[in-house]
Amino acid sequence: MYHVSRIKMAKIPDKNISVEDFTEETFQLESLRDGEALCKTRFISLDPYLAEMMQSWQGPEPEWREGIIVGRMVGEIIESRDPRLEPGDWVNGDSHWQSLESGPAKRFRKLQIEPGVPMSAYLGVLGASGLTAWIGVNRIIDVKEGETFTVSSAAGTVGAIAGQLAKMRGAKVVGVAGGQDKCREVVSILGFDACVDHLAPDFEAQLAAAVDGCIDAHYENVGTKILDPVLGLMRDKGRIGLCGLIAHYLNDDAIELKNFRKLLTSGLTLQGFRIYDHLDAAKQAQVELMAGIRAGKITVRETITEGLPNAPQAYVNMLGSGGIGKHVVHLTD
Amino acid sequence: MYHVSRIKMAKIPDKNISVEDFTEETFQLESLRDGEALCKTRFISLDPYLAEMMQSWQGPEPEWREGIIVGRMVGEIIESRDPRLEPGDWVNGDSHWQSLESGPAKRFRKLQIEPGVPMSAYLGVLGASGLTAWIGVNRIIDVKEGETFTVSSAAGTVGAIAGQLAKMRGAKVVGVAGGQDKCREVVSILGFDACVDHLAPDFEAQLAAAVDGCIDAHYENVGTKILDPVLGLMRDKGRIGLCGLIAHYLNDDAIELKNFRKLLTSGLTLQGFRIYDHLDAAKQAQVELMAGIRAGKITVRETITEGLPNAPQAYVNMLGSGGIGKHVVHLTD
Repeated sequence: MYHVSRIKMAKIPDKNISVEDFTEETFQLESLRDGEALCKTRFISLDPYLAEMMQSWQGPEPEWREGIIVGRMVGEIIESRDPRLEPGDWVNGDSHWQSLESGPAKRFRKLQIEPGVPMSAYLGVLGASGLTAWIGVNRIIDVKEGETFTVSSAAGTVGAIAGQLAKMRGAKVVGVAGGQDKCREVVSILGFDACVDHLAPDFEAQLAAAVDGCIDAHYENVGTKILDPVLGLMRDKGRIGLCGLIAHYLNDDAIELKNFRKLLTSGLTLQGFRIYDHLDAAKQAQVELMAGIRAGKITVRETITEGLPNAPQAYVNMLGSGGIGKHVVHLTD
Repeated sequence: MYHVSRIKMAKIPDKNISVEDFTEETFQLESLRDGEALCKTRFISLDPYLAEMMQSWQGPEPEWREGIIVGRMVGEIIESRDPRLEPGDWVNGDSHWQSLESGPAKRFRKLQIEPGVPMSAYLGVLGASGLTAWIGVNRIIDVKEGETFTVSSAAGTVGAIAGQLAKMRGAKVVGVAGGQDKCREVVSILGFDACVDHLAPDFEAQLAAAVDGCIDAHYENVGTKILDPVLGLMRDKGRIGLCGLIAHYLNDDAIELKNFRKLLTSGLTLQGFRIYDHLDAAKQAQVELMAGIRAGKITVRETITEGLPNAPQAYVNMLGSGGIGKHVVHLTD
């Protein structure tokens, strides 16, 4: 028997998700059966896409119906009754927000540890965020050399990696982020050609100037506030990859776009995509992302919060900030 | 010198286009120069896409800046100073709304007349409307056998042909049209599997029932009133071809979609398209459309208005009705 702490939803949030919507519970895990392994959670990933499921208590996994969060984690195997895993192995996989996980060994994917790469990177640039960015830039949008590429939430993990991947493909890369400090970092640390502050009163004019009046390809993570002016600037036959609508997860109001007609009049393609439709790309993406990291062309910042009990506050902060780099919670012993 | 009558815009419409926004003028055309031809206009095409240019006095052709309408016509060459054309030839091409057109012979495309096909068909099923429908169904959406395909403005020319082309590809075809009479005709005359009346109070429920809860592919001509419930019913990785937004041409209000998030959550592709990006498909489309006509699989109804002076009223009627079949004006001597 093992004592486990878990953070779950306490209630369905009224409108915005707040720390009061979460609760901590403890329970006991039974001993392992044959074919199972026990994993100590080391890092849990705080991702915007979870917000919609937290709001609705509905998701691909049935646990959501009880308010139990299913996110992503990196952990360490501490006991195994399956030959594929042994204590000391590092793994990632889907997991609840809890201190220990047990289950069939195939639930845990063993990580090939690369020297010099922090474990938390397996939740970010080498995990789902990196793959999401890679799919959008390579498969959905197919960014080409010399094109002008824009990405919203450029200071967030996915946006940061997407911009850097587009840069590796030879595009001119312009980010959009909230606040001048973030924008400065996106240029100075991530190496974007420019980054425009969507909080600026003349945001649209600044964006038009930064892209010289024309965008070939766009990677959307946020919503109408960015997407609408971008649509207005899209070149004929431009492509938009729709990866997220973080600004619209917390309500179900209609989405308004003044420039929606541009999809028709400029013959644009807008394609929504989901990582789990493209898992076959994971190996190629990982190879290219690792090459980018080694060449110093992909840099990702992290915001690490210590301790499982602080996960709710960290999650609310992440949503509010729109994300500076990858947000993770580090679980200590 | 030739006397010419022309319908042009009298003023920029306030909000909705009305007959008062048009005027008729007469003027004289100069004698032909070498390389030119003179064409007697026989049919002019009344198309929804013109409305946006009528509203703004802006379009691809510079004449729009003076309120001169540039549409499509079928006519008869009555004089030629170019070896490629001779009197009696039937042609189509872009044209003003006027009784006679002169200009470089290459402006007029000579038609291969098919026995039993009315001349006005060269503005419809064998003209731009047919090509537009073909491009959407074949190139943009790529409708597949066994899929459930929906099309809005199903009683309009483009919608009618699109549905019949999708049917030829083996899809289950459900139209959307305004009014029970139109819907009945779409099923009984055009051969759709079903047609749903968007004026019905329970339109959304009727649509869901007609498609068995799931749409694979959709061809949009109208706007949010149809597109929004369709988005809500789209199957994972569904494709939407955006061919028109007729309901939104008469103003520039923001477009609101409650189900816009579905593009992301179901990984949908929404692609706007314009006929002039796909003119290379014209020959193949014409062959397939003609085969469909001969096999009785493509039927198109026409609404013919007699006399150029009646063109403004016919145009306003066409916009108001959303179109029953192809609307043309027949110019008599």
